[in-house]
Amino acid sequence: MTLTGKMLIGQRAILGSREALHAMNPATDQSLEPGYPGGTAAHVAQACTLAWAAFDAYRDTSLENRAAFLETIASEIDALGDTLIDRAVAETGLARARILGERGRTCQQLRSFARVVRAGQWLDARVDPALPQRQPLPRADLRQRQVALGPVAVFGASNFPLAFSVAGGDTASALAAGCPVVVKAHSAHPGTSELVGQAVARAVQHCGLPEGVFSLLFGSGREVGVALVSDPRVKAVGFTGSRSGGLALCDVAHARPEPIPVYAEMSSINPVLLFPAALRARGDALAQGFIASLTQGAGQLCTNPGLVLAHQGADLDRFIVTASAHLAHCPAQTMLTPGIYQAYQQGVSALNTNSHAHLAASGAGAQGPNQGQAHLFVTSARHLLADPALHTEVFGATALIVQCANEAEMRQVAEHLEGQLTATLHLDDSDLPLARALLPTLERKAGRLLVNGWPTGVEVCDAMVHGGPFPATSDARGTSVGTAAILRFLRPVCYQDFPDSLLPVALGQANPLHLRRLLDGQREA
Amino acid sequence: MTLTGKMLIGQRAILGSREALHAMNPATDQSLEPGYPGGTAAHVAQACTLAWAAFDAYRDTSLENRAAFLETIASEIDALGDTLIDRAVAETGLARARILGERGRTCQQLRSFARVVRAGQWLDARVDPALPQRQPLPRADLRQRQVALGPVAVFGASNFPLAFSVAGGDTASALAAGCPVVVKAHSAHPGTSELVGQAVARAVQHCGLPEGVFSLLFGSGREVGVALVSDPRVKAVGFTGSRSGGLALCDVAHARPEPIPVYAEMSSINPVLLFPAALRARGDALAQGFIASLTQGAGQLCTNPGLVLAHQGADLDRFIVTASAHLAHCPAQTMLTPGIYQAYQQGVSALNTNSHAHLAASGAGAQGPNQGQAHLFVTSARHLLADPALHTEVFGATALIVQCANEAEMRQVAEHLEGQLTATLHLDDSDLPLARALLPTLERKAGRLLVNGWPTGVEVCDAMVHGGPFPATSDARGTSVGTAAILRFLRPVCYQDFPDSLLPVALGQANPLHLRRLLDGQREA
Repeated sequence: MTLTGKMLIGQRAILGSREALHAMNPATDQSLEPGYPGGTAAHVAQACTLAWAAFDAYRDTSLENRAAFLETIASEIDALGDTLIDRAVAETGLARARILGERGRTCQQLRSFARVVRAGQWLDARVDPALPQRQPLPRADLRQRQVALGPVAVFGASNFPLAFSVAGGDTASALAAGCPVVVKAHSAHPGTSELVGQAVARAVQHCGLPEGVFSLLFGSGREVGVALVSDPRVKAVGFTGSRSGGLALCDVAHARPEPIPVYAEMSSINPVLLFPAALRARGDALAQGFIASLTQGAGQLCTNPGLVLAHQGADLDRFIVTASAHLAHCPAQTMLTPGIYQAYQQGVSALNTNSHAHLAASGAGAQGPNQGQAHLFVTSARHLLADPALHTEVFGATALIVQCANEAEMRQVAEHLEGQLTATLHLDDSDLPLARALLPTLERKAGRLLVNGWPTGVEVCDAMVHGGPFPATSDARGTSVGTAAILRFLRPVCYQDFPDSLLPVALGQANPLHLRRLLDGQREA
Repeated sequence: MTLTGKMLIGQRAILGSREALHAMNPATDQSLEPGYPGGTAAHVAQACTLAWAAFDAYRDTSLENRAAFLETIASEIDALGDTLIDRAVAETGLARARILGERGRTCQQLRSFARVVRAGQWLDARVDPALPQRQPLPRADLRQRQVALGPVAVFGASNFPLAFSVAGGDTASALAAGCPVVVKAHSAHPGTSELVGQAVARAVQHCGLPEGVFSLLFGSGREVGVALVSDPRVKAVGFTGSRSGGLALCDVAHARPEPIPVYAEMSSINPVLLFPAALRARGDALAQGFIASLTQGAGQLCTNPGLVLAHQGADLDRFIVTASAHLAHCPAQTMLTPGIYQAYQQGVSALNTNSHAHLAASGAGAQGPNQGQAHLFVTSARHLLADPALHTEVFGATALIVQCANEAEMRQVAEHLEGQLTATLHLDDSDLPLARALLPTLERKAGRLLVNGWPTGVEVCDAMVHGGPFPATSDARGTSVGTAAILRFLRPVCYQDFPDSLLPVALGQANPLHLRRLLDGQREA
């Protein structure tokens, strides 16, 4: 479990030939060894050649074998023990407890997909038996199942070095679907990536799978990423990161001779709507909860509540005072990378110099390098509607409170928002009519709607949606968290009049997998 | 039921202000009245404004009301009687029996989607109940359902004036999903389009739905289509037509500030593989069946078998002789439009002048305007592999037979093909090992695989896939025929900790719709 600075191209550890990137410990601004020389387009081609060679065999693995593979990855990650935890803490500046929790989530996610694979509902097996006597024309025997799209390129995220990275949700769901995965590691945590990559590669070997099922590449510029998304053997892309980064990959994917789907999770300011009765009855508790959610993980969560909407007046004024008091006690927190810290400072500076937003409060000042100070700004709905700059995501612990003149203006702001990962409603019973009136708008705007909670904290379960209309994601039809994430990497194939011996096992006459298939329009028992 | 030459913008019949287009009777080359003046970008905006205004109310209709609407459309189309049939025959040159069959299929499709809507499985309702005692963190109550994407732009196809046009599969599935539809009528059959459009508009009125649920626009240039796909209120596109036309719409959709999904069904040559034992045992019957499929509807079917692969030798030689004999008796058939006829002539001419393809047989010569003569060409696998021009779809009754030196070359050709709607295998028991070896390749290449049948004739049922990898379609994840087509126009939304009174009815605690929801990982009974 020593770090080598090498990429994994199938089972081979290979040193890149471009300039080495080093992780930085953002808490100390010190560079961490080893260096990770970047890969080239030739390395990408090698990984894709292996992935393509592995594809047919891997997608044909039994449900049991594929599930066992996912569970083996989880066991191998657990077995990395403190080596992984220590490195991830050093590379991200995130608290140890947070990284421990994230490891638990990552392994639980892999085990969840193992359960999903075994249950086989994702195959969406459909059987329409032949109707040879039908008039005026007989019906053929028609059967449908879902098959894997092909090798998937996964781009690790900076802010979840385990759960949205090398063996995170995109990788787990693509592997569950039967797709080989080629990961481009995030440059912020190459050591964590190498450790997890080694764990996955060991699982590939232990399970006797073709080596091309998994590769891990490094690279600090655009070369590796563009080559990966351009490679004709790659058939889909998973990405979590910035809007500009995600859109650049979408452009590359669209310009290919064969365009491919890109699932990019990009940008969200996660509006929180405080309805009048709730704000009046428990404004202080809401303010406390809001600041806790805003400052969690230095605000570096995709679902960070960056925008609060409420009716102007004494109740909102008091909420702002209470929130400000809580914020003042929040320590500055080390951000993930110097680059993210600098972008945060720029975002805060833009709000500070915006004449239509005023600073209500700030947290404690920085005590060390790359520490982001929390801020709370206030503006009016009128200004928000007029100034697109006020909608821009500031990735970090800064939020904007929007004073709305009345119900109509609150709805106007909601309607004006771009697509979001989440929208949150704080309401009491007497707010229900107002909330109900806004619900159709919010359903059109966001992938997840919450009542009386906070959007940070994304459960891995069947009903989760971590997705949403553009620009929250590049494809609102999917989710990148939860078991439905597997559906992104599948396509349907129909088999007409196949002899039983040639049918895929999921569609066999005797239903050997005991699936609850859609048989002649009815769900099998 | 008189033709007016007017568009339908909601419930209003509006005359376009651009140059009028006239349908041509391709059998006589005569222009048909009335003229259909084209719409402008302003008309598009009006239709989209209405569609947007209707969206929230329409997607919130009960399953029963929405199903009844689809059934009412079917009844209204049936009620058009011979007026519709006569006009469609005149505008397309297709046989009356074919148009009658297509009407039946179109109405059956609408009624199928009514059944699908009522059954509600497309909602994919998921419920993960709260786990307040869970350690280390409680789980919230999480529920997921599918919601409609938004207004959908539908581009009617030339070759199915009813089943892939104004109230065809794209429209039926989008309406079933809860999406208002704005149709751009195909310029080849404006009268048919107006009649069907009037039927849909009457159904909107009878069912008391907001008028923006359906609009129908005309236009001969790019103005209407580009404006429609560019309109920010349009959230998805359905298209059936040429590769160049589909790709142009994909580019427009990708360049929007908010990109949207395009489901374009474009181009397929539908390879047919004749395996050795089958070819030996029943080559004559195969030749007869092949020519019947090839010449059906003047070869103007998306699933027309344009490429035949088999091992070279005496059995294939005999197949070619027999097929040629059958083809020689096939009359030339009127094609859909002068433009399609000219494009067909150019495609045939390109094959005729290609030194690596030789003409094996032709059908009877033309007896009237726009009549396409059937042709059969032969080439070798080696030449096919070397010359991309030999892969180009010739839309009409022309096919290319490819002589393969051996099994390896047959597989090489299959691997070399672009994405397809269908791939067909003719085999006997002793061919099964060969077929099994090729199956993984074919699954990667096509949306539907057939054994011992012909690809023309696409059943509307649960298991159908009319789709496939690029360039068969722009999005292999969907099908444009069959009940799964509804899934293209949906996205998931998650509801966290919602009070029961605020939940959508599909997710209510008491399961009032009696859906078989995924409850805590188990399918409800």
